Amino acid sequence: MEGIAIMTSGGDAAGMNPAVKCAVDYSRSLGYKPFLIFNGLRGLIDDDIEEAKRSSVSGIMHRGGTVLRSSRSKRFFDYESRLVAYENLKKHGIKKLIVIGGDGSFRALNQFYSDFKVPFAGIPATIDNDIPGTDYCLGVDTALNMIRSNVDSIRDTANSFSRAFVVETMGRHCGYLAMASAVTSGAEICLVPELEYDLDAIGERLRLQIEEGRNFLIAIVAEGCNMSDYLTRWIHDTLKVDARLTILGHIQRGGSPTVRDRLMAFKFAVAAVESLHRGETSNIMVYRSGNFGTLPIHKVTDSPASVDPALVELCKPLCR
Amino acid sequence: MEGIAIMTSGGDAAGMNPAVKCAVDYSRSLGYKPFLIFNGLRGLIDDDIEEAKRSSVSGIMHRGGTVLRSSRSKRFFDYESRLVAYENLKKHGIKKLIVIGGDGSFRALNQFYSDFKVPFAGIPATIDNDIPGTDYCLGVDTALNMIRSNVDSIRDTANSFSRAFVVETMGRHCGYLAMASAVTSGAEICLVPELEYDLDAIGERLRLQIEEGRNFLIAIVAEGCNMSDYLTRWIHDTLKVDARLTILGHIQRGGSPTVRDRLMAFKFAVAAVESLHRGETSNIMVYRSGNFGTLPIHKVTDSPASVDPALVELCKPLCR
Amino acid sequence: MEGIAIMTSGGDAAGMNPAVKCAVDYSRSLGYKPFLIFNGLRGLIDDDIEEAKRSSVSGIMHRGGTVLRSSRSKRFFDYESRLVAYENLKKHGIKKLIVIGGDGSFRALNQFYSDFKVPFAGIPATIDNDIPGTDYCLGVDTALNMIRSNVDSIRDTANSFSRAFVVETMGRHCGYLAMASAVTSGAEICLVPELEYDLDAIGERLRLQIEEGRNFLIAIVAEGCNMSDYLTRWIHDTLKVDARLTILGHIQRGGSPTVRDRLMAFKFAVAAVESLHRGETSNIMVYRSGNFGTLPIHKVTDSPASVDPALVELCKPLCR
Amino acid sequence: MEGIAIMTSGGDAAGMNPAVKCAVDYSRSLGYKPFLIFNGLRGLIDDDIEEAKRSSVSGIMHRGGTVLRSSRSKRFFDYESRLVAYENLKKHGIKKLIVIGGDGSFRALNQFYSDFKVPFAGIPATIDNDIPGTDYCLGVDTALNMIRSNVDSIRDTANSFSRAFVVETMGRHCGYLAMASAVTSGAEICLVPELEYDLDAIGERLRLQIEEGRNFLIAIVAEGCNMSDYLTRWIHDTLKVDARLTILGHIQRGGSPTVRDRLMAFKFAVAAVESLHRGETSNIMVYRSGNFGTLPIHKVTDSPASVDPALVELCKPLCR
Repeated sequence: MEGIAIMTSGGDAAGMNPAVKCAVDYSRSLGYKPFLIFNGLRGLIDDDIEEAKRSSVSGIMHRGGTVLRSSRSKRFFDYESRLVAYENLKKHGIKKLIVIGGDGSFRALNQFYSDFKVPFAGIPATIDNDIPGTDYCLGVDTALNMIRSNVDSIRDTANSFSRAFVVETMGRHCGYLAMASAVTSGAEICLVPELEYDLDAIGERLRLQIEEGRNFLIAIVAEGCNMSDYLTRWIHDTLKVDARLTILGHIQRGGSPTVRDRLMAFKFAVAAVESLHRGETSNIMVYRSGNFGTLPIHKVTDSPASVDPALVELCKPLCR
Repeated sequence: MEGIAIMTSGGDAAGMNPAVKCAVDYSRSLGYKPFLIFNGLRGLIDDDIEEAKRSSVSGIMHRGGTVLRSSRSKRFFDYESRLVAYENLKKHGIKKLIVIGGDGSFRALNQFYSDFKVPFAGIPATIDNDIPGTDYCLGVDTALNMIRSNVDSIRDTANSFSRAFVVETMGRHCGYLAMASAVTSGAEICLVPELEYDLDAIGERLRLQIEEGRNFLIAIVAEGCNMSDYLTRWIHDTLKVDARLTILGHIQRGGSPTVRDRLMAFKFAVAAVESLHRGETSNIMVYRSGNFGTLPIHKVTDSPASVDPALVELCKPLCR
Repeated sequence: MEGIAIMTSGGDAAGMNPAVKCAVDYSRSLGYKPFLIFNGLRGLIDDDIEEAKRSSVSGIMHRGGTVLRSSRSKRFFDYESRLVAYENLKKHGIKKLIVIGGDGSFRALNQFYSDFKVPFAGIPATIDNDIPGTDYCLGVDTALNMIRSNVDSIRDTANSFSRAFVVETMGRHCGYLAMASAVTSGAEICLVPELEYDLDAIGERLRLQIEEGRNFLIAIVAEGCNMSDYLTRWIHDTLKVDARLTILGHIQRGGSPTVRDRLMAFKFAVAAVESLHRGETSNIMVYRSGNFGTLPIHKVTDSPASVDPALVELCKPLCR
Repeated sequence: MEGIAIMTSGGDAAGMNPAVKCAVDYSRSLGYKPFLIFNGLRGLIDDDIEEAKRSSVSGIMHRGGTVLRSSRSKRFFDYESRLVAYENLKKHGIKKLIVIGGDGSFRALNQFYSDFKVPFAGIPATIDNDIPGTDYCLGVDTALNMIRSNVDSIRDTANSFSRAFVVETMGRHCGYLAMASAVTSGAEICLVPELEYDLDAIGERLRLQIEEGRNFLIAIVAEGCNMSDYLTRWIHDTLKVDARLTILGHIQRGGSPTVRDRLMAFKFAVAAVESLHRGETSNIMVYRSGNFGTLPIHKVTDSPASVDPALVELCKPLCR
């Protein structure tokens, strides 16, 4: 039986565990011998690899993070290390790889493919939702619902105490989390890297509402804007409302995967196994316009990420 | 200003409140005067109608159910009652209607349109996910996550006590909730109206696993199968595993809407207002293959509902 | 090093896992060698016993149910089986036992103590909160919060649809869960075995409120009343309100333990280890009037269970 | 009918709303006419006072924060403002006050009592759990469970990525939240103002564990220690583990009150109404050793706050 190995790489995201479980089960059902690689690229080099037994993936579906653990390994940039990794795979009889992670991990595996012709299939997973070519990355729905429950809770306090709260979400280059959270939590302000904002217009709009009785404010700001501290002071100084900053940080990453993240994980995993089974060598699984498909890796790494235009429209009134 | 009125009708579903809020805000932004109809079709007849103020829809986004309340009104079948309803609308200057509910409600509004030429737009909302022509109905994602957290909790007990649990979900004709829940909760058995099941094969498969050490079982059954009691006894008698039945019932309907249900609600509401604004008279908003669109009502009521084929594939191994 | 073994027995309850972890850690810190007995009394007989390693209790604190699993074993009634159990303990060098469970399990261990002089300490754990001599049993707070989130969700639907919901909680002889849930969820009716109820008075009270505009009802009924079906029909027939029944069942048992159940688990576990360390032979840990203490087992099994009188007072208006 | 008015003051805490509801219902049942004061002390001066109707307190039980809103008013320090407040009360026929808040609010009301002989009863509410004389303050259990769910989620990421997380909880002078959270989340380090800590010892303990395979760390630090940033760097520099800081902030305040906070709220509210009904003039409700009682305000304001000694014992191993 041909070996197929599954690994997670890069920042952890909810949904990785159901994807691992499904990839193991489905590849076995097609006649492969599934393996697990622990600790990401580092484990590939260090031979942290074992055959997947039924018990190793039982009961992991509802757990957050990744039971395979992850890492960011610089050693993988060296050909020598990759050669060691290749020898490890050969020893176990592993002929194909599935990697669940971000575009950095995909590029690393693509280099590995160029070197040693070990085909791989990539499953996009990152709560930033910023991998080009796919509308959805594993972990996003769970992250959004973690943010929601915390913002719903902050709203209680904001309302009780006539106060403004600035909430900073993750997202270095991509404001998806911030936009979706702002719209669905009924925030009054949203600042993201993708959209121009006009603080003067925002000030005017809110001053009017405050005169009409508004007694609290919620603002959602993407990390990548670097505006959280400034906005907090600005609300205090300009709108004369007591304002506090909450940085959600790593709270957003964890939590038991939502049903959507579990379902998407399964479908991505099935697609990845089938891509390898069809003989594809370096494709990334993507979800676009409601359909699952694959893209050659260069199409993913070369395209710009884009954000759902309907969400942008819903968000625009919060930027001005 | 032309009046546009929003109502909810039929069984309640999470996501109705965000849809109401967005329909009010967006129609106002296009120059309409928004109204709220309380108590569904009954309120239309009884003039339970008031202009929507900012305060009437503020803070409703995170609430489950529908603040407009709902009902099932038989009186609306009578022309006389519908005439009264029409007079009510005329009095308020309401020229267009948005109805959030199921296909029964859509048909009622279509009859009303035939009678008095009051255009309407329908937004599909039901946790059964069984409205033809659309892949998604408001409330489904929240219902699935309510089921998930309860099944995850039942699993603790099943595992602790070496027991089988049969969990009955809603779904009279459509097994979507049961299938998605079974797959994402790692259930061992799933019975739904759409799929043939083979108890003998199930028995053989599980007996093997029990011999290998499996010490608990989860089975998810759709209400419409009428098999919950039978399966519970069958597990006890045939597999010799102590089995208990849990009927989730109305727990599935409620709960604060998930982020997905809030986002879908907004997009459906924008689509509905735009449909009416474009002059369409009797269309239903649908979400198909990842895109929002509209369908004439007869295309909705005449087509059969279909279930995501990828989900069916994932579910099949649980039916045999 | 003297061996001390920990087991769970009877129905599972949240808080068992933190109690196991703490008993292992604390007994080790006092110089004992901790063991785990799996599958309750059955495991005691079948030698399902292993030394507790750090890894066996790591990461179990936030898990529901019991990782040691539980059982109800009739074999333990036979002296022969108990003798086998005793030989197992001797083999491992286990001199003391901690049992986490209900009064049935305590009695079984007491018999075992009479036979072979193996001292034990009991930690009360049952969501029914009906063990005499203690105000609190592990699992109750988690169960109450599981009920709360489901009743809060049912309320959304009740309110949306002008309907009554009858919710049946666990509790065969003891209405604690039902009373605490009724009071804290703002229910209108509560029926429990301990309190007389007057349906005529309830009917009169609610008819008045319905006339004044009340449009939904929540009733909480303890399983032991055997009144759920009757009350549902009664509401429909007498109050003319559409009524539905939800039986919460095993949903109530599971879920990650709340902070209170984790804290109580730790304190009970410390008390149990110290009881054995002081040389006590057959005591039950109890929490009374805010203090932890121990009671000889016969004082527990001979006393009647009592319910918090302040809760009874808060509940009385819901019974008439 | 004599008027009795209820207000919330100081920082908001879950459980305030159930306390308001119960105080209204119970005082009415004893023949008083209940009033609500909005916006705390400021509302007392500004006559933001209205009679409590059934509808004003219906459906508030499960809401976080305080529907009466709160404030910190410096004007109340002036006799002139207090005189205005007194005239407001006289106008409405309000003879007694219930204030739900912290010791600052109690002192303000006591001054008011000295001035105008308006008796009051205080209900302790603050998530810091630092009001002297009582073991419990409303809001603590909900705050602890909010922290728990976030720390459980952070643990997923810590574990997945072999990382340390420092989590800062609220608590300026009192480490109760941090201690209870550290113990119940299985944290490895806890720093609080009340307990001496020994970083050298902590370092030694953890280095050993890291050598044995520990791959992640959780540290909980009370805000009042001012050690969060330092500890994060220290872990990185000394233990050579990648470390991140999460400041939970106002997330901790909100959320639907837990069952325990609802039950405690009811009992405190009943005690407060009864204290006033007995003719007591300036007492604070306290919960000590499992019993509810009252303390004259000077006994509260003059005593030092103390922390549960059993919790301190459980926490000590995490400080060294």
